[in-house]
Amino acid sequence: MTQNASAPQPLKIAVLGAGTVGTDVIRLLGQHPKDFAHRAGAPLEIIGIGVRDSSKDRGPHVDRSLIRDDLEALVEEADIVVEVMGGQEPARSLILHALENGASVITANKALLATDGPALYEAADRHGVDISFEAAVAGAIPLIRPLRDSLAGDRIERVLGIVNGTTNYILDAMTRTGQSFDDALADAQRLGYAEADPTADVEGQDAAAKASILASLAFHSRVHLDDVFLEGITRISSDDVAAAERLGRVIKLLSVVERVTGEDGSEAISARVYPVMLPNAHPLASVGEAFNAVFVEAEAAGELMFYGQGAGGAPTASAVLGDLVSVARNRVFGGKEPDESFYAKLPTAGLDALSNPFYLALTVVDRPGVLADVAGILSENGISISTIHQEGATDPEGSDASAHIGIVTHTAGEKDMQTALEQLRSRDTVTSVDSLVRVEGE
Amino acid sequence: MTQNASAPQPLKIAVLGAGTVGTDVIRLLGQHPKDFAHRAGAPLEIIGIGVRDSSKDRGPHVDRSLIRDDLEALVEEADIVVEVMGGQEPARSLILHALENGASVITANKALLATDGPALYEAADRHGVDISFEAAVAGAIPLIRPLRDSLAGDRIERVLGIVNGTTNYILDAMTRTGQSFDDALADAQRLGYAEADPTADVEGQDAAAKASILASLAFHSRVHLDDVFLEGITRISSDDVAAAERLGRVIKLLSVVERVTGEDGSEAISARVYPVMLPNAHPLASVGEAFNAVFVEAEAAGELMFYGQGAGGAPTASAVLGDLVSVARNRVFGGKEPDESFYAKLPTAGLDALSNPFYLALTVVDRPGVLADVAGILSENGISISTIHQEGATDPEGSDASAHIGIVTHTAGEKDMQTALEQLRSRDTVTSVDSLVRVEGE
Repeated sequence: MTQNASAPQPLKIAVLGAGTVGTDVIRLLGQHPKDFAHRAGAPLEIIGIGVRDSSKDRGPHVDRSLIRDDLEALVEEADIVVEVMGGQEPARSLILHALENGASVITANKALLATDGPALYEAADRHGVDISFEAAVAGAIPLIRPLRDSLAGDRIERVLGIVNGTTNYILDAMTRTGQSFDDALADAQRLGYAEADPTADVEGQDAAAKASILASLAFHSRVHLDDVFLEGITRISSDDVAAAERLGRVIKLLSVVERVTGEDGSEAISARVYPVMLPNAHPLASVGEAFNAVFVEAEAAGELMFYGQGAGGAPTASAVLGDLVSVARNRVFGGKEPDESFYAKLPTAGLDALSNPFYLALTVVDRPGVLADVAGILSENGISISTIHQEGATDPEGSDASAHIGIVTHTAGEKDMQTALEQLRSRDTVTSVDSLVRVEGE
Repeated sequence: MTQNASAPQPLKIAVLGAGTVGTDVIRLLGQHPKDFAHRAGAPLEIIGIGVRDSSKDRGPHVDRSLIRDDLEALVEEADIVVEVMGGQEPARSLILHALENGASVITANKALLATDGPALYEAADRHGVDISFEAAVAGAIPLIRPLRDSLAGDRIERVLGIVNGTTNYILDAMTRTGQSFDDALADAQRLGYAEADPTADVEGQDAAAKASILASLAFHSRVHLDDVFLEGITRISSDDVAAAERLGRVIKLLSVVERVTGEDGSEAISARVYPVMLPNAHPLASVGEAFNAVFVEAEAAGELMFYGQGAGGAPTASAVLGDLVSVARNRVFGGKEPDESFYAKLPTAGLDALSNPFYLALTVVDRPGVLADVAGILSENGISISTIHQEGATDPEGSDASAHIGIVTHTAGEKDMQTALEQLRSRDTVTSVDSLVRVEGE
């Protein structure tokens, strides 16, 4: 045991950002300082807390004398920089500045990693320091280390993640109460589960950033945010939720990253975020409220699931502090976290490369032959129907009565389904295509 | 990126044991050698496969020319030794010999770690090499690294684990089919989920070994197998399983390791293995068949769960190979896994320090006043009743008729319950105390 070597120098920690996460990082570091010193091999001393507005009150855990707004100078004095301010700039420049000055960096900034990850990893490598980001995906849930280290001897085939708590909370509420999306969103905002501007969550951008990070790690390649197909949950209706229930399923917003093999045997990565219908028996189906969970399919390990709180001050701080101990140990004992691994350099595949079952909801004119017409269009595109459900104002007298049709298809190509949708929309018997939701987890 | 530095020397790997796990380690290493070379920073070359019986056929994946029975000499030639032979000796001596010769070691040997872990960790530390053991607990599920590294910045309060697949399979079968323990065990043996001699599984010894490893990691202390309280599942009857169902619960064999705080504020570790009744809504309740899952409660992270396959060749090999890549990287790039952390040196607490609700089943003489008598004895020992259920041959005429009583208590001390049991057993109105099962996860 070398952990108690004679009076090691304290490591100088700069915390950038004193919001919910930053405040909890500071509080927890102050609560059990001896534990941290033992685990890291040296005391961890906060030398400054960098904020943009130094006049704002930060609560009882933040020592006001440590508050600074000269962020660049603060970074230069630190051994380790904890970046929990979020956003692109000045976070990006400050992280690069820290790495160039030989400091190690811990960040929870998924949006930045999804666009600028490789530049940051390269800078860390060039200067022989660490950049760690366990908190960037699925909050408190240990995920980055398990994917990168524990499964390093395995071959990951697919990762399905509920990695956005806001949308899971909204979809769970819609499922439990039958609420509309708008009502569930309003409730989530009132309860603090959704922000005033919920766009990044409900349109799937936050989940897509996490998908790009997961895909890069799982497949030893670089996957940029722009390579992730993206569809949010704003168009999910209470009718869709009810249809899922009828089918023994539940709607979840999933980040899916997957190894796909082309007909010529070449491999590529598919990374996508969209709402799916999952069977009730799937382990991810029962993940309720704002919880996160990530389901991994690996060649040797088989199916694994990681479950926990994906957001919130203390859970995110737990992940940040886990990284902090590892990174601090490396500075004390001379190790280094693994570099970015992207040797596989797999390309990304578009949605067209994929096939899966679909749920399709249509409003049609209620007239004899319409169903046959719809089935015919699907069939012409090589899409076969698994189940069909019709309801609505079936009025044999009225010529303008409309009916609602819900169809679950067998596995079909994305491209074929898009062609079929175009043809369906062009028919005057089809009033509207109301929903298209992928079916996963068969 | 330094992963592709010019033609690094291959690392020499010795595999000790060519059973189910060993064979899969060898097969998987041979399947994607380039992936391993990239991830580890050098090719991984198996220089020998050590077995006790070199005449036995090991299947198509094991190169017969690598089979050796001079285990000590083999270990001396290796950079990394993978010990998957199991048992105490010669595994213990070979691991020590490897560490003394400067080799790093990966082991899946929970029984050995639970008794001799500290001696092995100390030897690794003394010789500046790694000993890793992700595969020793919960097979493929990344757990050791998450507890040791990811949660290093948190304070773990409690770990509840289903870490023995055989007993989970048996209890799950009893729950699904109403089978007796003996029938479910016989089925499990026929299907390969239980060994011919199932003692180590059904008596809880395997789960206790894992509890000692989990407790040591979670609480930065040393917990020996002998410090783990142990009760198996052989006395669980189909009546108990039915009672649990009636109560909205399910019976699971849990390894529980927990931080307990005495009245004077002093801390200790409770480590125990016993069957418990869990509410159906608890995340561990739905873990079926031979799957494993570990539920962690931490101060900042809150509730986490890790789920996956706990045994089997390929899943266990996945964990071994994850360790192998990390340990190999350390040899190539000069890092080191964290040493054993036992700075907290917490003592272990006996069962007497604990309180929880109990389920208690009694057979009593069906006579007026008996129920009042039973309730009186519990009450005298400070135990209050939450629910009570009576059934059986209630025959108002017959003086020898007996009734079955099932009682769920409120939280009660273990010591008080033992005293109450003794008193109950001494009454001539109490024919037998049939069951005592702890209730967890309220």
